[in-house]
Amino acid sequence: MRGEPIVVLLVEDDPAHAEIVRRNFETSRIANRLIHLSDGQAALDYLCRRDVFSDPATSPRPGIILLDLRLPKVDGLNVLKNIKSDPLLEKIPVVILTTSAAESDIVKAYEYHANSYLVKPVDFHSFTELMDTLGYYWLVWNQHPAPKGE
Amino acid sequence: MRGEPIVVLLVEDDPAHAEIVRRNFETSRIANRLIHLSDGQAALDYLCRRDVFSDPATSPRPGIILLDLRLPKVDGLNVLKNIKSDPLLEKIPVVILTTSAAESDIVKAYEYHANSYLVKPVDFHSFTELMDTLGYYWLVWNQHPAPKGE
Repeated sequence: MRGEPIVVLLVEDDPAHAEIVRRNFETSRIANRLIHLSDGQAALDYLCRRDVFSDPATSPRPGIILLDLRLPKVDGLNVLKNIKSDPLLEKIPVVILTTSAAESDIVKAYEYHANSYLVKPVDFHSFTELMDTLGYYWLVWNQHPAPKGE
Repeated sequence: MRGEPIVVLLVEDDPAHAEIVRRNFETSRIANRLIHLSDGQAALDYLCRRDVFSDPATSPRPGIILLDLRLPKVDGLNVLKNIKSDPLLEKIPVVILTTSAAESDIVKAYEYHANSYLVKPVDFHSFTELMDTLGYYWLVWNQHPAPKGE
C-alpha cells in the first residue's frame, strides 16, 4: 500500500456508468484521483502524453486503468493492445469493464493481456457492490510498479 | 458467473500459508475446487499434464492460479513465464501471492504478464481478509475464458 493517491484512469463513454464509478471512487476509503475520458483516442493521447495531455503534472500516469470495450474513435480492445505493447505502459493493470459477456471479447481481452475482465451488472446495486470490491482489491491490496516516465 | 465449480490452483510451499488459503476457499460462498501443489516443477507438470497429471478428469485446467514466488525446484517467476508463453495456458489469470514486496519482483511479474500481484499480510486476520476479497473478486466477479484443452 502506498501513501500517495492512486491515479485511476476511467475510459467510459456512457455518462451514467461513468457517474456510478465516479461516485464510488469519491466515497472510497482509499485516496485516489479519478480521471475520466470518454473515447479510445483520448485515452491513448492521454497515456502517450500527446497534445493537451503533454504535461505530466496534469496528466500523471495512472496506477490502474478501467477500460470499456465499446468506445468511440478507437475501440477498447485496440486501446488495450496499444497499452500492452508499449514498454512505458504495459505494466499498468488494465481492468476491462464492459457490458459485453461475449466469449470472443473475453478471449481477445486476455490474449491482449488484460489483467482482469468484468461485466457491468445491469442493476445499480450490484454495480455499486462491484465497484466497492474492485476499488478495495485494486487500490488497497494489489501492488503495481511505480509509474514510469514521470 | 458460471455454474460449475471454479478450479483454483494454489502453488505454495509454506504449509501454514496454504492452510489459510485452503480454509478460506473451503468456507467460501462460491463453489470451487482447490488443488494445492508445493513446488514450481509440480505446477508446470500439472498444467502441462505430464506424468501423474496426464488425466484431464483428475487434473482439470484451473480457472485461476495463485502463485507464490519463492518456490522449490522452479521459482514462481519462471513458472509464470512458462504459463504466459503457452497458448493453452496464457489466458488463465495468474495472481502472484508472495511475501516479497521488492519492486524488482513486482516489475518482473508484470513484465511476464501476471494478472495481479499481492503481498501476503503478516498477521492472520489481514491474510484472511485478503483471501475473502481475492475469492470474491476473482471467483464471483471476474470473467475468465472457458478452459481450453479439456
